Amino acid sequence: MKLATIRLADRTVAARLEGDVLVEVGQPDVGAVLADPAGLAAAASAAGPEHPVAGAEFATLVPRPSKVVCVGLNYQNHIKEMGRDLPEYPTLFAKFADTLIGARDDIERPAETEMLDWEAELTVVVGRQVRRADEQAAVAAIAGFTVLNDVTCRDWQFRTREWLQGKNWDHTTPVGPYLVTPDELGGPRPALDIRCAVDDQVMQQDNTGDLLFDPVALVRYVSTMVRLNPGDLIATGTPGGVGHARKPPVFLDEGAIVTTEIEGIGQLKNRVTGGSR
Amino acid sequence: MKLATIRLADRTVAARLEGDVLVEVGQPDVGAVLADPAGLAAAASAAGPEHPVAGAEFATLVPRPSKVVCVGLNYQNHIKEMGRDLPEYPTLFAKFADTLIGARDDIERPAETEMLDWEAELTVVVGRQVRRADEQAAVAAIAGFTVLNDVTCRDWQFRTREWLQGKNWDHTTPVGPYLVTPDELGGPRPALDIRCAVDDQVMQQDNTGDLLFDPVALVRYVSTMVRLNPGDLIATGTPGGVGHARKPPVFLDEGAIVTTEIEGIGQLKNRVTGGSR
Repeated sequence: MKLATIRLADRTVAARLEGDVLVEVGQPDVGAVLADPAGLAAAASAAGPEHPVAGAEFATLVPRPSKVVCVGLNYQNHIKEMGRDLPEYPTLFAKFADTLIGARDDIERPAETEMLDWEAELTVVVGRQVRRADEQAAVAAIAGFTVLNDVTCRDWQFRTREWLQGKNWDHTTPVGPYLVTPDELGGPRPALDIRCAVDDQVMQQDNTGDLLFDPVALVRYVSTMVRLNPGDLIATGTPGGVGHARKPPVFLDEGAIVTTEIEGIGQLKNRVTGGSR
Repeated sequence: MKLATIRLADRTVAARLEGDVLVEVGQPDVGAVLADPAGLAAAASAAGPEHPVAGAEFATLVPRPSKVVCVGLNYQNHIKEMGRDLPEYPTLFAKFADTLIGARDDIERPAETEMLDWEAELTVVVGRQVRRADEQAAVAAIAGFTVLNDVTCRDWQFRTREWLQGKNWDHTTPVGPYLVTPDELGGPRPALDIRCAVDDQVMQQDNTGDLLFDPVALVRYVSTMVRLNPGDLIATGTPGGVGHARKPPVFLDEGAIVTTEIEGIGQLKNRVTGGSR
């Protein structure tokens, strides 16, 4: 099943993709579907009003997750090519929900940065509350996967030793277009091509099967610390090819089109706009 | 004005402190008071049911802030005693709302840590939405101040280069007991004695006037990146005297009583309990 949150004239609705139409499932967004213990099952058979996919406007998948946990270096190829040892533990930081935008929304480039960069990421969508999950509980807690681009102000990221301030700018982080359930992706540890292009140049290309800490391991690790709630997002890290590591470095200017795609899930396509200061 | 969120048998209520009674103000919690543009003014004169302070059970001040932003090293004396230069920018990290507990609640010591530590912090409570605040807007956005103890698992904090995983354990972070408006504390840059004791030993003692980045500066800095919303918390950093910097190091064991106090705001008093794994 593929679910999206789409915008109508005066509200959002959750909808199931069926061929080339989106069928409303009777909830205001995918977060509400997940918060309802019977929500995913009901969504699978709901038959509300239909909207053509062409022309649908995607809102961010879950408008107000209680947490967005992001993982640092996690693609083994990329870690090795950087000459680093494989880490023993995942590096974690947070994004605030106010950063999240829809799959086709503009990325607002802040006037305060000179180094706006991309980071394509496979993202776990949590489907039930879980704490100190074992393998089975972690698998059961994964409602599905989506695409996120952890757009980053590198100059702010490296102002201090904590990355947070490079990662938390309003209206910069597209998430969507779909939550896709694990059964459509080969299970809870999917091996999918992931790609990010800027304008017509492919900048990142890898496979999510290369993750050092896979989705199940991440649910277990994060839930050791803190409960995960339905709708929470875990962005699993980005492969090599980000702008600041290129020689010479490349950053996002106003007008650039960032296309972020994961096989079987879908595509984010976002224009970079000049932000006001 | 001093406002608290207190627990009744089946719900929480926001209440105003008047002498030795807490007067209900007609909102379920302080977050709801702040989310209502007329909420603070209404709370000042509301005259609902009264409850004696003695015996009141404090819930965490704002149950679901959209963000809890924490500041790293920020007390000048402490930075200098560590032999460091004063930083140009504040170091920021995040706590998730699921970590927050009330002013008298037990701190759940996770079985996974050997190094549970304390960090007393003056905390800004945001009262209105603001982005890229100038001086005047930042002052106006500060609804008041509260006390927070950023209880930390040092072993997990230093597992990786990002601090988040040391700072985000369920049911570890007391906040309260009161939101105190700036007019009762000498304005938006209060100079107040701050203190943390473990059992009967004073471990931290300083004055919030020593902050390198003061509350107004922090609202301006954080809001440059991301909107601040009513109820958001900014924990302004902790003075010297934390357990892992002591010689020899001291950590919190089951049964310890942690008392965290700021002059004019109030006291957190929390027992450390053994957590389940």
